[in-house]
Amino acid sequence: MPASAKNVIANLNELRALTGDADGAQRLAWTPVWLKAREWFESKLADLPVEWHFDAAGNRWVTLRGDSEKVLVIGSHLDSVPNGGWLDGSLGVMAGLEVLRGIAEAFDGRPPVTVRLVDWADEEGARFGRSLFGSSAFAGKHTISADRVRTDRDGVKLEDALQTCGIEVDRIGDATIEQAQIAAYLELHIEQGPVLEESSLPLAAVLGTKGVERHAITFYGQEAHSGSTPMAVRRDALAAAARLALEIRPIARKHTDAVCTMGSVKTFPGIVTAVVGRCEATLDQRDLDVEVLKTMLREARQASERFASEEGCTVEWSKIWSIEPILFHPKLIELCEEAIRETAGVSHRMPSGPLHDAAEVARSGIPTVMMFVQSLAGISHNKIEDTKIEHLELAVVAFDRLAAKTMQWIERA
Amino acid sequence: MPASAKNVIANLNELRALTGDADGAQRLAWTPVWLKAREWFESKLADLPVEWHFDAAGNRWVTLRGDSEKVLVIGSHLDSVPNGGWLDGSLGVMAGLEVLRGIAEAFDGRPPVTVRLVDWADEEGARFGRSLFGSSAFAGKHTISADRVRTDRDGVKLEDALQTCGIEVDRIGDATIEQAQIAAYLELHIEQGPVLEESSLPLAAVLGTKGVERHAITFYGQEAHSGSTPMAVRRDALAAAARLALEIRPIARKHTDAVCTMGSVKTFPGIVTAVVGRCEATLDQRDLDVEVLKTMLREARQASERFASEEGCTVEWSKIWSIEPILFHPKLIELCEEAIRETAGVSHRMPSGPLHDAAEVARSGIPTVMMFVQSLAGISHNKIEDTKIEHLELAVVAFDRLAAKTMQWIERA
Repeated sequence: MPASAKNVIANLNELRALTGDADGAQRLAWTPVWLKAREWFESKLADLPVEWHFDAAGNRWVTLRGDSEKVLVIGSHLDSVPNGGWLDGSLGVMAGLEVLRGIAEAFDGRPPVTVRLVDWADEEGARFGRSLFGSSAFAGKHTISADRVRTDRDGVKLEDALQTCGIEVDRIGDATIEQAQIAAYLELHIEQGPVLEESSLPLAAVLGTKGVERHAITFYGQEAHSGSTPMAVRRDALAAAARLALEIRPIARKHTDAVCTMGSVKTFPGIVTAVVGRCEATLDQRDLDVEVLKTMLREARQASERFASEEGCTVEWSKIWSIEPILFHPKLIELCEEAIRETAGVSHRMPSGPLHDAAEVARSGIPTVMMFVQSLAGISHNKIEDTKIEHLELAVVAFDRLAAKTMQWIERA
Repeated sequence: MPASAKNVIANLNELRALTGDADGAQRLAWTPVWLKAREWFESKLADLPVEWHFDAAGNRWVTLRGDSEKVLVIGSHLDSVPNGGWLDGSLGVMAGLEVLRGIAEAFDGRPPVTVRLVDWADEEGARFGRSLFGSSAFAGKHTISADRVRTDRDGVKLEDALQTCGIEVDRIGDATIEQAQIAAYLELHIEQGPVLEESSLPLAAVLGTKGVERHAITFYGQEAHSGSTPMAVRRDALAAAARLALEIRPIARKHTDAVCTMGSVKTFPGIVTAVVGRCEATLDQRDLDVEVLKTMLREARQASERFASEEGCTVEWSKIWSIEPILFHPKLIELCEEAIRETAGVSHRMPSGPLHDAAEVARSGIPTVMMFVQSLAGISHNKIEDTKIEHLELAVVAFDRLAAKTMQWIERA
């Protein structure tokens, strides 16, 4: 029997019942519920002709040996945010397991290339604030010195949490040895945005993950009494920030897939009777094109300086974090589109706004592609996260086709 | 010797040395430092032909009996905010004391009308959040049931703090008996705004205190992932609030002295990676004309509804507090302008944005006027609050003239 969406959905429901509650999925990495999910997943491997092990960063590798030592890897993550959804991450792992099962069956336990399934450790970073933990260690981009001092909200050190799961923080860089012989990496994930639903499309080939520029912007004006300070002499830091909050929209809209977001605004003194003397805002800008990203950052900075000057304020920028755009592999994007078109009749290409483990794999130089399946209302990281059953069915079939096409591509290479 | 600015400034400096520290004035009402200020003030009365007592709300009344039972009252407050300035309130009390001394001397202890000096209790409301405490009790606008449950930040009840100062909260309404025979009320105060300095004017006659409309405004949009949500489908509650923050400015600027302030903005979830789903803002609108106030409130509300609708959001308003404009007495405003013109050569009329004890006196039906003296940089409630010495000198002379003119007006009435 080829990969079956029924099996995938049955497994997802089993996992949800085991590791979720009325508020949603509770599989925070490095917690007992996550370990329970991984133990349950292990039980699903019992009947398959595979070996498995954990690498030095806690990623689980399940290997189905093939005629060639070249490896096709399929992966995603079992960990969730608190009160998370039933599909984010686990869909990719369950679909990967089912594709692996189908391949093992079709080739009688010995496919032409080696196929591995990976369950990445701590994609979300929800407990310790370090997302893509396992996949970045695999990619050689670990941050051990920063990781050693991370704590959760109860003051538990990441280092100690890792140790209870058998992971030595100083050794996580050894996970790079898993890169050997990997010829391609595939990941199926829900879109976590509204684009496919808006266009009535079930599936898309993902072009890569957008680069991100994330900055803290502070406007300094003059705190003043709301009753005694005429409008004409005010130096209102909120006014400057409000103008920037609106200006980032045309800056983003000049480019097809670009986004700019002001997610946080804080006012000081922040009382009803005082003109705002200081306003702290955050800016998050994303695009797949590094030049677009640079342009948007420059335009936002120039706009902020113009608004500050016009409002009698000053402005300071401080970088929070940035990452370059990461492009997926052109040939694999093409195969992904083929698989989608053959399954659903229509395909689509789009960038991913959120980061994924696939971005770390691609950064390490391994040909990578992701497939997105439609999310309802674009909602994720929430118990109401959902996808239509018929779309999950199409996704499993198309992803299975992509795996077959990718094995052939690896064989021929 | 007529009222002397030198005496006023010497007293202000003495009071500052006694009740201030490196951070400014510390005369919070109902605290030992404030009681020390009041005790010091009492010592200044020893050589004057006056009687004094505390009323039921803790206001101190100093009486210089005159030929007529009709009373001219001069007043202000000795209490300050924490880390306050050296002039806010205390200038009015010290100038009043000096004017009283001058009148007693000029009329050999028996002026034609009775003159009283009042030191209002707790104008600032800095400790318990109830400003104009003493003057509103005097005016019959006390709020005993609300006052009984007020606490300071350490959990001390206002009721108990009052008792340590000899005040029974249930009896503060009895302060209204002090209204008897009062024919006029005068108060000198620093402007606490930048208007006079901007116009290079030392003094102004105050037309009244502006009415205030104070509202909490909440925009509801849709929280969404900053990476995966295209600009075109966002329902950004911050964008709606930002548009309102900018729109209140033209709404205010249509009217000469009107002001509109958004002093606080809070974003939810308020994180760098999420489009703002809920935005809470405050609006403070002030004008001396009740119709202007109504128009501005209607326009801001309509604008908020238009922005909410255009941004795919909804909006809710909730009133925090409001007070009507309180107009001072036309004849006393005229006398105040005369006194200023005769002293400084040039006069000005302006409304007060901040409230003052004078507003409560005027609300009780007593003819009232205030005189403002220029504030440097419009700054108050801060240790750097200051006024040029030459302007303090003009203020004392002009205020003394106003008192003389007002006594004559009372006599002739």
